[in-house]
Amino acid sequence: MVQAVVLLSGGLDSAAVAAWMAREGFQVVALTVDYGQRHRAELEASRRVAVALRVAEHVILPVDLRKVGGSALTAELPVPKAAGPLAPVAADIPVTYVPARNLLFLSLAAGLAEARGAQDIGIGVNALDYSGYPDCRPEFLRAFEEAANLGTRAGAEGRRFRVHAPLVDLRKVEILRLARELGVPVDLTLSCYDPGSAGNPCGRCDACRLRARAEAELDGRKLP
Amino acid sequence: MVQAVVLLSGGLDSAAVAAWMAREGFQVVALTVDYGQRHRAELEASRRVAVALRVAEHVILPVDLRKVGGSALTAELPVPKAAGPLAPVAADIPVTYVPARNLLFLSLAAGLAEARGAQDIGIGVNALDYSGYPDCRPEFLRAFEEAANLGTRAGAEGRRFRVHAPLVDLRKVEILRLARELGVPVDLTLSCYDPGSAGNPCGRCDACRLRARAEAELDGRKLP
Repeated sequence: MVQAVVLLSGGLDSAAVAAWMAREGFQVVALTVDYGQRHRAELEASRRVAVALRVAEHVILPVDLRKVGGSALTAELPVPKAAGPLAPVAADIPVTYVPARNLLFLSLAAGLAEARGAQDIGIGVNALDYSGYPDCRPEFLRAFEEAANLGTRAGAEGRRFRVHAPLVDLRKVEILRLARELGVPVDLTLSCYDPGSAGNPCGRCDACRLRARAEAELDGRKLP
Repeated sequence: MVQAVVLLSGGLDSAAVAAWMAREGFQVVALTVDYGQRHRAELEASRRVAVALRVAEHVILPVDLRKVGGSALTAELPVPKAAGPLAPVAADIPVTYVPARNLLFLSLAAGLAEARGAQDIGIGVNALDYSGYPDCRPEFLRAFEEAANLGTRAGAEGRRFRVHAPLVDLRKVEILRLARELGVPVDLTLSCYDPGSAGNPCGRCDACRLRARAEAELDGRKLP
């Protein structure tokens, strides 16, 4: 079977990508980056998801981005919270942006793929994110492929990398529907930026609210 | 002063770049990646060099690439050795190639630069290396800039990254001459891939032999 490296965060989106890549026929090597994120429960979620999806291998790689700083997800800045799930989500680049995070994560994925003889990389970026996070834009993904193809032995020898972003044009409710269709253990995933010590979602950060709205919409419920 | 992030390995080339960037007027933030390299003495050399060059800040970032593998510098493969300094250096991509290393290092540098409000990155790649390592080619550096500009908040907001590679067309002897001119403490640097436990160079790996030849050429000595 052909291997592919999938960036797995423990959230809903990356779990959906891992399941999608498996359905496409790839043997999935999951890569989770422990970057010092304040939402440590995400790492536990990634372990649960990797086991449930029966990935071929799960690599957890520590890269302490607290030494880099500049983000509410790693530094001691507060994660923005709203009063309820229907409050608007910020349209600007939010303080939860982590400098060059997807550039770094994709670089690590390219290195792992190259070391395993793989050429395919899966990442769960999507339209909702790329309205705020520049490193979720399709044009960035294409530019990254070009850099990876020029900057690796694999690329230099003609084994070109392909970055798969199957969620890139999907809204959260469509991702949730796809995840359920693919049999993703949605309840094992964790999307919250600032979960409690027991790993429970806060319910008020952007990630929680986007997910709550998607679940309500898909199940035909009204949010309070 | 305008800050710049310089990738500092502890070897001769990156020390020369740090000194060159300082001469260009940048306040240097040195970034050393502790990637599990077998030549751990390199990290000590980077500390000595950073102090000697009086950099504004020295960030040492651990990223354990032994979990990725695929290289003689991180995995348990032997580093190729030759009989003496005049034996030919391999023309192919050597086993000391680390999958996607410069892609990863530049991504970390871009993240640190963005977090510090800097746009300039210095890296010590050069012609000798890019004959063997694909991630030392100028076209890769240009593709990386493009990816970083598209995949960061800084780039999205028009603060474009510039990757400076002042050694890119230089031979080792020219780098050594430049380093001496710039006042680099050459004796504090360490270029060996496989130093002894006391940090002494092996004298027989590609890096040692290239440097020994350059020193002999510059000083008008004959190698045995």
